[in-house]
Amino acid sequence: MAASALPGVESVLAAALCEDLGRGDVTTRLTVPDGRMGEAFLTAKQHAVIAGLDLVTPVFELAGGGVILRLEAADGDQVVPGRILARMKGPARVLLMGERVALNFLQQLSGVATHTRSFVDAVAGTTARITDTRKTVPGLRVLQKYAVRVGGGSNHRSGLDDGILIKDNHIAAAGGLGAAVGLAKSGAPHGLKVEVECETLAQVGEALTAGADIILLDNMSVDDMRQAVKQVGGRALVEASGGIVLANVRAVAETGVDLISVGALTHSAPAVDISMGWQS
Amino acid sequence: MAASALPGVESVLAAALCEDLGRGDVTTRLTVPDGRMGEAFLTAKQHAVIAGLDLVTPVFELAGGGVILRLEAADGDQVVPGRILARMKGPARVLLMGERVALNFLQQLSGVATHTRSFVDAVAGTTARITDTRKTVPGLRVLQKYAVRVGGGSNHRSGLDDGILIKDNHIAAAGGLGAAVGLAKSGAPHGLKVEVECETLAQVGEALTAGADIILLDNMSVDDMRQAVKQVGGRALVEASGGIVLANVRAVAETGVDLISVGALTHSAPAVDISMGWQS
Amino acid sequence: MAASALPGVESVLAAALCEDLGRGDVTTRLTVPDGRMGEAFLTAKQHAVIAGLDLVTPVFELAGGGVILRLEAADGDQVVPGRILARMKGPARVLLMGERVALNFLQQLSGVATHTRSFVDAVAGTTARITDTRKTVPGLRVLQKYAVRVGGGSNHRSGLDDGILIKDNHIAAAGGLGAAVGLAKSGAPHGLKVEVECETLAQVGEALTAGADIILLDNMSVDDMRQAVKQVGGRALVEASGGIVLANVRAVAETGVDLISVGALTHSAPAVDISMGWQS
Amino acid sequence: MAASALPGVESVLAAALCEDLGRGDVTTRLTVPDGRMGEAFLTAKQHAVIAGLDLVTPVFELAGGGVILRLEAADGDQVVPGRILARMKGPARVLLMGERVALNFLQQLSGVATHTRSFVDAVAGTTARITDTRKTVPGLRVLQKYAVRVGGGSNHRSGLDDGILIKDNHIAAAGGLGAAVGLAKSGAPHGLKVEVECETLAQVGEALTAGADIILLDNMSVDDMRQAVKQVGGRALVEASGGIVLANVRAVAETGVDLISVGALTHSAPAVDISMGWQS
Amino acid sequence: MAASALPGVESVLAAALCEDLGRGDVTTRLTVPDGRMGEAFLTAKQHAVIAGLDLVTPVFELAGGGVILRLEAADGDQVVPGRILARMKGPARVLLMGERVALNFLQQLSGVATHTRSFVDAVAGTTARITDTRKTVPGLRVLQKYAVRVGGGSNHRSGLDDGILIKDNHIAAAGGLGAAVGLAKSGAPHGLKVEVECETLAQVGEALTAGADIILLDNMSVDDMRQAVKQVGGRALVEASGGIVLANVRAVAETGVDLISVGALTHSAPAVDISMGWQS
Amino acid sequence: MAASALPGVESVLAAALCEDLGRGDVTTRLTVPDGRMGEAFLTAKQHAVIAGLDLVTPVFELAGGGVILRLEAADGDQVVPGRILARMKGPARVLLMGERVALNFLQQLSGVATHTRSFVDAVAGTTARITDTRKTVPGLRVLQKYAVRVGGGSNHRSGLDDGILIKDNHIAAAGGLGAAVGLAKSGAPHGLKVEVECETLAQVGEALTAGADIILLDNMSVDDMRQAVKQVGGRALVEASGGIVLANVRAVAETGVDLISVGALTHSAPAVDISMGWQS
Repeated sequence: MAASALPGVESVLAAALCEDLGRGDVTTRLTVPDGRMGEAFLTAKQHAVIAGLDLVTPVFELAGGGVILRLEAADGDQVVPGRILARMKGPARVLLMGERVALNFLQQLSGVATHTRSFVDAVAGTTARITDTRKTVPGLRVLQKYAVRVGGGSNHRSGLDDGILIKDNHIAAAGGLGAAVGLAKSGAPHGLKVEVECETLAQVGEALTAGADIILLDNMSVDDMRQAVKQVGGRALVEASGGIVLANVRAVAETGVDLISVGALTHSAPAVDISMGWQS
Repeated sequence: MAASALPGVESVLAAALCEDLGRGDVTTRLTVPDGRMGEAFLTAKQHAVIAGLDLVTPVFELAGGGVILRLEAADGDQVVPGRILARMKGPARVLLMGERVALNFLQQLSGVATHTRSFVDAVAGTTARITDTRKTVPGLRVLQKYAVRVGGGSNHRSGLDDGILIKDNHIAAAGGLGAAVGLAKSGAPHGLKVEVECETLAQVGEALTAGADIILLDNMSVDDMRQAVKQVGGRALVEASGGIVLANVRAVAETGVDLISVGALTHSAPAVDISMGWQS
Repeated sequence: MAASALPGVESVLAAALCEDLGRGDVTTRLTVPDGRMGEAFLTAKQHAVIAGLDLVTPVFELAGGGVILRLEAADGDQVVPGRILARMKGPARVLLMGERVALNFLQQLSGVATHTRSFVDAVAGTTARITDTRKTVPGLRVLQKYAVRVGGGSNHRSGLDDGILIKDNHIAAAGGLGAAVGLAKSGAPHGLKVEVECETLAQVGEALTAGADIILLDNMSVDDMRQAVKQVGGRALVEASGGIVLANVRAVAETGVDLISVGALTHSAPAVDISMGWQS
Repeated sequence: MAASALPGVESVLAAALCEDLGRGDVTTRLTVPDGRMGEAFLTAKQHAVIAGLDLVTPVFELAGGGVILRLEAADGDQVVPGRILARMKGPARVLLMGERVALNFLQQLSGVATHTRSFVDAVAGTTARITDTRKTVPGLRVLQKYAVRVGGGSNHRSGLDDGILIKDNHIAAAGGLGAAVGLAKSGAPHGLKVEVECETLAQVGEALTAGADIILLDNMSVDDMRQAVKQVGGRALVEASGGIVLANVRAVAETGVDLISVGALTHSAPAVDISMGWQS
Repeated sequence: MAASALPGVESVLAAALCEDLGRGDVTTRLTVPDGRMGEAFLTAKQHAVIAGLDLVTPVFELAGGGVILRLEAADGDQVVPGRILARMKGPARVLLMGERVALNFLQQLSGVATHTRSFVDAVAGTTARITDTRKTVPGLRVLQKYAVRVGGGSNHRSGLDDGILIKDNHIAAAGGLGAAVGLAKSGAPHGLKVEVECETLAQVGEALTAGADIILLDNMSVDDMRQAVKQVGGRALVEASGGIVLANVRAVAETGVDLISVGALTHSAPAVDISMGWQS
Repeated sequence: MAASALPGVESVLAAALCEDLGRGDVTTRLTVPDGRMGEAFLTAKQHAVIAGLDLVTPVFELAGGGVILRLEAADGDQVVPGRILARMKGPARVLLMGERVALNFLQQLSGVATHTRSFVDAVAGTTARITDTRKTVPGLRVLQKYAVRVGGGSNHRSGLDDGILIKDNHIAAAGGLGAAVGLAKSGAPHGLKVEVECETLAQVGEALTAGADIILLDNMSVDDMRQAVKQVGGRALVEASGGIVLANVRAVAETGVDLISVGALTHSAPAVDISMGWQS
């Protein structure tokens, strides 16, 4: 499913354009005649995994329309510096008014896909999947989670409503880990698994007894993770979380965990340098 | 002016909360009783400049309210790891439902302020000001520009409507740099200065002749910048732009330019690690 | 969690009030002086399970405010005709402007809770849970699913994003039941179970082999359901669906299925008769 | 005027789709390839009056578009079980994502039209018109009132602003029935008639004296209604209201009243069973 | 009912503030310290009827809040130049940010009330009422119609849905005046009167025969109006419309028409000069 | 840039149409058959400068679409009474439902353009430009400022964020005119000029010393203005403001000021009489 077809994306694009245009592009209104046409192209300036290319079309549509775009790359492509991503023809005013917003989305999402891909590559050959978290940039979650998939990662829950994750405060409030898991299993919509955060191997045992479907190992040492995986023995999925960076992700993956969640995929991915050039 | 008082911020917060809550927090509904109270605190986990602290209150208000917050730091503070930023008391459900969204804003904005501060410190003692660009994260521009100010930077225009910046395509469309500047000067609201992007020293001369108020030196070498500053001789403001990173920003500043614009302040600032702990 | 605290409910209430008020209550403006106060009370006119009582307060708040409300019943209460549910005091204009909207919500939601309760009571003593479906009244899903819980039912997924349910068309498109289940298991967020709709006992076998977490028996005879439950033997949850009414629900429950989904809970629950009387 | 052309309907459809899709259809994304096409048809499963058929097109448009629809019935048609209502061809993903929402609207509105038609048929040959009330499902008033018209009923006011209806509390506040009618007649926009609710024959007399245009007989016995009609003698329209069901509506109509308002048309109409089948 | 209590007004105020603030008040942010308080007062600079005074409070609330306002006049007051209308104390930033928007509403609405009052005074002693039209300033209809009432005028329909007015094109489409009136009388919600526009005395006759409730005399001469009033003889309300200005309104009123509608009340009322002064 | 291409205009049009249609055009629904076509034309009834003609198309699009429009004039045209502005063909229902809203915009904006033109003509031959202010009709600022340009005027700032204007209260809060100008110059985005309001010639001197870019002469006599212009001597732009009407604007312009701002352009421009006729 293309980025532009995700629910709510059109209004995210419209809000971003509105944020940039304000009451209108003064410079362009004053210097560029109304009927003038232009041609431009998008170029990657660095190695990257591209994500969000199909958003360019609706951005120009919202900026006034009339732009014809020919994609020369697709989301998921790993590109080298200088690679042309798309060519556009249309009213010069529209191209100028939509340029920055289109690039801002493309640069942010390609940043996430590129960052994700580096983690995915680092664990290649193990059975671990790299997943995202809820540590996303406010307002861009659906798009960032799309970019994670483009980069080869998989998605954790999208929000507080489409997944159950019991943390220490839920445990304290429910009167114990077993009680919390029990409440969740009996009360939740039956399509949701119950995941519980464990800080010790003892808690992992409790979680198994209570019938948890997924066990999150919170900030455990690599040795403890290896131990936990053994202890679980396939009776639940095991997710590693906390303090995982490129330098240690392979070691974590080799413990045998099923999932490794990494906040930095979405909260700290540097933007990819992509520019819009003009055909002279 | 506090971040929460900026126009449009309340709806940005509400959208972010809505994005995270979806149809509601299943885990919390099932495991945490309705009347239960909790206490929590926010802690910085790394060296950082804090920005966005006052957003925490409206986030918890939108998440259900009833939270009492005591700030122990203020926006602009340079903090060390372990520094407590705020203490909160309130309904446990509300604290749990607002936690991630509050942290996401705080981490992103503190990231921008911290990144900005490093550039500002690098040019200390010169006359150059560090400014942001329109390369912002979609939907967060007003907040990111606030964080730039908190980090000691200054703001470029907020969008296409509150500043005039003539680029090569405007010049081409208008039939020359002088013509473009002329159109802008005669047609623009009289409160806006006219800025023009120059790629060569020859263009700098043209811009001065045409009466440009600000000259942007686009991707020039440090030597050319120094030359351009001399050429301008105070008749216009001079802004350096393009390819400026921490490693070269001081050299750029020492050319005598008035302004240095850096896209990375807002498009690639890594999030600051801030966490919410619970009083046991 | 109270109905009024569910995400998005306040805007649903505001839209309903706006729908009723239009440009304002002409009759009340012309005949009721601005400062006049009034007292009123809500009464059930039939046997019912009440749901949505706490919505009355925000409706009057949106209608102008100043109303003090004393609840004399709570959501989930099974009431008899004549039972007073709440007493209100406040500006007569506000009471008149909010009356119909408050009642419309209360009558609809109590209808759902009452209808649900009759199904839940009918299967008392079996291990089957009554669940809702996505056959809800457009715009009221979150509230109707709340009312189902109030009536003792449990919730199926809230939408297409927080649960996986593979139907015949997905199976055809994926190239077979096993293939479809496999795609879902490997690609879905790891917190979601995989449910698959089966029309025959042979398909039930395929679903088990493929590792489905939940098996939906679509319009099967009671005998086939009993057979299917045996065949599954606890390796997956079993949900009965299709053509289930009060007259046959107990027979279905006694087959041993875990879940019985009933569209009529939300698409055809008659409104409960509740009226607002005035203290003279 | 088609249902889809009514003011505000497009946003009601969009909200319903958003409610169902949430962050997107996981099952379909994972199991149905992007380019796959499908064919489907809508079938009535029971005797019904159809309403809302033209909403199907904009629902699929909002769900992604590309669906070609051929209507084989029209709003107002009285159909028998098995009757095909429409045939559709288009992207399988779009058909799957829009299916439930399209059906939910069609089932609810056909329910209202069908229920209305049964009341209208019951009074055939008398001079009474069946009208709706403001007891509608929140958010669906414009559509439900459309369905009432499709079922042969007529509409009462749409809200508090496009009709005047003086009830007992208005009377009390104004200091008497005559005073209330007087205030309404002198202050209201001149295009609105003045209707007043009467509980006794004495009040009917007062209302006539005061010049009321319409008299609502509130919960009167059939005998009193007959008496009231005689008393009014054509000087005002007479509306019967309160406790009217299919079993007694003809008797009420035969008293000679002009209008009979029935809340159940909109608050308790059971959904019509309509399903979407797939061409194999 | 106060202006600020009219449906939809709060969002009209918020939109106006947003329109003026954009991304925020730069001047005030830079020159006025955050905690500084101020005192100000509103003064009429000309003879006027005041309308919209109670909007000042919500405007300052939306601009940041904390302002205490003491009204020294009320809507409907006829004031002389120099009259103080209200005194305010609060944060200087909030007063500065809300000032212009508050004044813009107050000046526009007082303009409408003042203009209306001049027409109402001109027909004093006759039986004619001055009414507004749908020729209102886009977005301000509810407020302008309120101001008309404040100025002593009465309201025509608010829009196309709360009144029936048959014009020449409706007549042509329906196949004659009588046919059009008949369709409207049988199909309309029973609380709406049927008004029909007549250009000749012959049409007035047709309208009476068809049972029209209100007859609009479109651009007739004063003599024809007098004739029409006689012809109608109280069997319908008579409204004069078209080309009516202060200079001829009394002559029109003296023909005995019941209503005189004047577009200029709302489309061309000059703003009243009201200013905000600061306590030094 | 056409009026309809200005940011936010489409939603302003939609809101206006919604305001007029309410729940729908009853008269048209009842009297005009669904398929009926019509032809109409727009005519100016007085001398005017036309503005907003291109808004007619999107209004009819929003009202249902299918209307083909042929413009016979363009924004900025100075027309005489009787001049046809556009011809339209399309569904009669759509033409009837969009007519009033289209006219309301066209009449208001042409009013502003016409009023502006009279001021611009009055200063012809001088070097003064006529500019608007923030005294606009709430909700219509972007459109009114467009109409000012159409009438030959130039625009002042659009809001509080795209221009700096220091008034007496900012001066008082900052501790003096020089201090206020200094704070603005050092803190503002570098693309904004600093304008300061002066009431005396002494203040003009202070402003020059402080480096103000623009000096606003507030309510000065013509003699003082002449003096101020001399004093400034081209070191800053000079704007005259306060009490300027058609009768004195030329005298003001002849003092040599650069700009003359006139609130009445937007707050008190009478609507231009434009009507829609029907082809019989």
